[in-house]
Amino acid sequence: MNMQKSLDRIRELTGEIYDLKAAVALLEWDQEVYMPCNAAEGRARQMATLASLLHEKEISAEYAGLIESLNPESFPEDSAERHLVLKLQKNLARNRRISASLAGRLAGQAAKTQSAWMEAKASADFSRVEKDLKELIDLKKEYASLFPEAACPYDALLDDYEEGMTSASLDRIFEPVRRELPDILKEILARPQPDDSFVKENIYSGEDQMKFCRDVVSAMGYDWSCGRIDFTEHPFTTNFGLYDVRITTKILEKVPLSCIFTCIHECGHALYEQNICKDFDRTPLADGASLGFHESQSRLWENLVGRSAEFWHAFYPVLKKYFPKQLEGISEKAFLRAVNNVNPGGMIRTESDEVSYNLHILLRYDLERALFNEGLSVRDLPGCWNEKMKEYLGVRPANDSEGILQDVHWFCGLFGYFPTYALGNFIGAAMMEKIDRDHPEFRQEISRGNLAPLKNYLSEKLYCLGAMYSPAETWRRICGDEALSSRSFLCYLKQKYLAD
Amino acid sequence: MNMQKSLDRIRELTGEIYDLKAAVALLEWDQEVYMPCNAAEGRARQMATLASLLHEKEISAEYAGLIESLNPESFPEDSAERHLVLKLQKNLARNRRISASLAGRLAGQAAKTQSAWMEAKASADFSRVEKDLKELIDLKKEYASLFPEAACPYDALLDDYEEGMTSASLDRIFEPVRRELPDILKEILARPQPDDSFVKENIYSGEDQMKFCRDVVSAMGYDWSCGRIDFTEHPFTTNFGLYDVRITTKILEKVPLSCIFTCIHECGHALYEQNICKDFDRTPLADGASLGFHESQSRLWENLVGRSAEFWHAFYPVLKKYFPKQLEGISEKAFLRAVNNVNPGGMIRTESDEVSYNLHILLRYDLERALFNEGLSVRDLPGCWNEKMKEYLGVRPANDSEGILQDVHWFCGLFGYFPTYALGNFIGAAMMEKIDRDHPEFRQEISRGNLAPLKNYLSEKLYCLGAMYSPAETWRRICGDEALSSRSFLCYLKQKYLAD
Repeated sequence: MNMQKSLDRIRELTGEIYDLKAAVALLEWDQEVYMPCNAAEGRARQMATLASLLHEKEISAEYAGLIESLNPESFPEDSAERHLVLKLQKNLARNRRISASLAGRLAGQAAKTQSAWMEAKASADFSRVEKDLKELIDLKKEYASLFPEAACPYDALLDDYEEGMTSASLDRIFEPVRRELPDILKEILARPQPDDSFVKENIYSGEDQMKFCRDVVSAMGYDWSCGRIDFTEHPFTTNFGLYDVRITTKILEKVPLSCIFTCIHECGHALYEQNICKDFDRTPLADGASLGFHESQSRLWENLVGRSAEFWHAFYPVLKKYFPKQLEGISEKAFLRAVNNVNPGGMIRTESDEVSYNLHILLRYDLERALFNEGLSVRDLPGCWNEKMKEYLGVRPANDSEGILQDVHWFCGLFGYFPTYALGNFIGAAMMEKIDRDHPEFRQEISRGNLAPLKNYLSEKLYCLGAMYSPAETWRRICGDEALSSRSFLCYLKQKYLAD
Repeated sequence: MNMQKSLDRIRELTGEIYDLKAAVALLEWDQEVYMPCNAAEGRARQMATLASLLHEKEISAEYAGLIESLNPESFPEDSAERHLVLKLQKNLARNRRISASLAGRLAGQAAKTQSAWMEAKASADFSRVEKDLKELIDLKKEYASLFPEAACPYDALLDDYEEGMTSASLDRIFEPVRRELPDILKEILARPQPDDSFVKENIYSGEDQMKFCRDVVSAMGYDWSCGRIDFTEHPFTTNFGLYDVRITTKILEKVPLSCIFTCIHECGHALYEQNICKDFDRTPLADGASLGFHESQSRLWENLVGRSAEFWHAFYPVLKKYFPKQLEGISEKAFLRAVNNVNPGGMIRTESDEVSYNLHILLRYDLERALFNEGLSVRDLPGCWNEKMKEYLGVRPANDSEGILQDVHWFCGLFGYFPTYALGNFIGAAMMEKIDRDHPEFRQEISRGNLAPLKNYLSEKLYCLGAMYSPAETWRRICGDEALSSRSFLCYLKQKYLAD
């Protein structure tokens, strides 16, 4: 078979794999959004059946043979074809290292541990999930050992979420955060704190919250003909191909900022996916450059745009139109201060402000690295968690439920995932620093409610690339030769919170 | 492999097939209910990929070999196992007769014809779809020819929707309808017609319509933990396994009866599926006995219960509670008469009353039988349609849009399907006649708003059986030795509309 024929057949088979992935994603979306409660067991079986079909297809002899038969270098440099073949070869190599037995044991133990976690969290008792978590971690260690080329077990895990990232790099990136952030936080808290009671004690109707959120998301450039918003307990963005990118959110009637910033955050993810080059649809290139890059866009829109003075100059009047009574007598400035309230006393990462947030991540990074590289025992985890909370954030969880049990990630086997959240913050700040330097006019447009110039810039520079390039190469193309770091992010915080 | 082991493996593979079918059904449901418009092309491809995977699995060598290796008679008489094996063998035999080439051409031509139909309907011009329809019919003839044991080509098609049904039987069943119904209709229309302007001209808020519909559907025994209601242009019932049976409906603010009877109708289908023996889940036994039996339940609930005096005695006060102004001064009796208004002047089957309805079906039956058995040409179809409308219903469509183009069925290849709608009416009436005789107390309970005795009876006698028995055997078990006929149905109409 000649090269073009092989590639055509690979595209066909890859398309089928991505159609199946879309069906799995729809089963998951529906489970979170609309599925009636008693359908859960059947749904789990449907997803398991499709997942195993998917795995079969991904390692089928024909598919694997075709992928291996191609030489990426025979395609033009920097062509989508070359990048596609490289990506397929990398994925295939990874899939092949993992035996069906280990994959099955990992999936099974993850499901079991997640169930145990739900009970443990409900009863605020880590000991109920300790044994399962230990077994899951042992399986993840076995998994990590399949990648002996990694400098340490934790690096093998990291690479799954952030290709090429290592704990050495993370240590370097985190170092200034670790050194400076606790002091920045203290200094902010030493100042008078804003009153934000009006966005915590009044009732804001869900219907009007959503009207405002739809206005904002539309202004961001969300393409409603290729997406929609629904409601879930834990908001997320998903896609069933590049023409169907959906957001979910959650309404708290007394806390309107929750739904607003959730919508902006998820829309940031969605803008990324909706603007990937459509030629990449149904291939592994139809994705973000990495989880870090994906999160950089949700956080850029949520914090660097959505919590800015310019943004609320344009949108506070719109919000007041929907909630004239609730916001009566609240000036734009007072509102902006409430939106940027810093409160490290909250124990929960997902509810934390943009200053405290990365300390929550740092804590998790320290602990998961210690688990995989330094033999920290699972039994000692809750104690270490609580000590680190005290050290980084000055507070101590009252129980395991608001401590180590707050996030599901570890209990379904996601180790090495948390750092990508922090990387998202750092990448987003670096991009915005460059944008403010190169295009100061964007901020003026934002203050007029025109978000299109920023969105178009991001689409052209980042979104349209999809997963064509590695995270490192994507970074280089956008931010140049300066190494990825937390510098811009720390500058941003100091500038915003401590300048005046 | 011994028998039990073979059966276990068959169950496993069948379960996977039904998981895939559930995923396909979810893709379809989402397409009708929530999918954003630009996702259509991708969704079609996803469904095509899953359909072809499904076909592969259904005729895989392992699966086929196992199914053929079993002797149904080695399982206890009347056991679910024996019926399952029989059904699987029948399905396999059918699937094997159809070449991949014919299946592909049929699916392709059906999709093409359906597209052409949409354009033809929009412009009320049959000639735009004539050629495609002719090709589709030729393919259906080729398909019918694969079943030479059928007495005529049309019988081969019928069997797909109503196992064992023949045009000879249908002719016998339809004969009294053909003879008596036009006169019954004339006699009804000679009487003074009720005023139903209050359910056609006032505004009934969609929200309150749905509150009422939820009350009714709950009273019918719809299990909300295994289902939900959403909104679509063309309402339907679907399931993703027996624990997830969903209804859709449609709201017209000026025509509240539309949504109410749609909900009752679809809930009739849903009750059937929700009450199939749960052991049958993920097998072909988890279905109605036939399309006719399925429709018998939607129509039994919609018409024989939902348009009865007893039903509205209980539910009219509930409806008035939601719409006090719109129904001010309208007595229960006046409302009941409005609910049973007969209006054959409507050209549209789906909007027709229960008296006219079967004449719409008879017309379609005559024409499709003539197409397949008697060489009626596609070119002559619209003219024949219009003549038959005049003959059966006394009206003539103004154009093809409200004539031959009104239903999608033929244009996506469903020939032999329409008669099951009439059979549903006849089976439902026969069942209700028996129920009224054996359990006169059910009507009293209905007039108190207690629909449970009827629902429990139907569950026990029919729903729980699923597709275990053939339609003929199912009929025999419920209605005894009297042959399936339209007798009870015609009695019901005469009793209801002409008795006083």
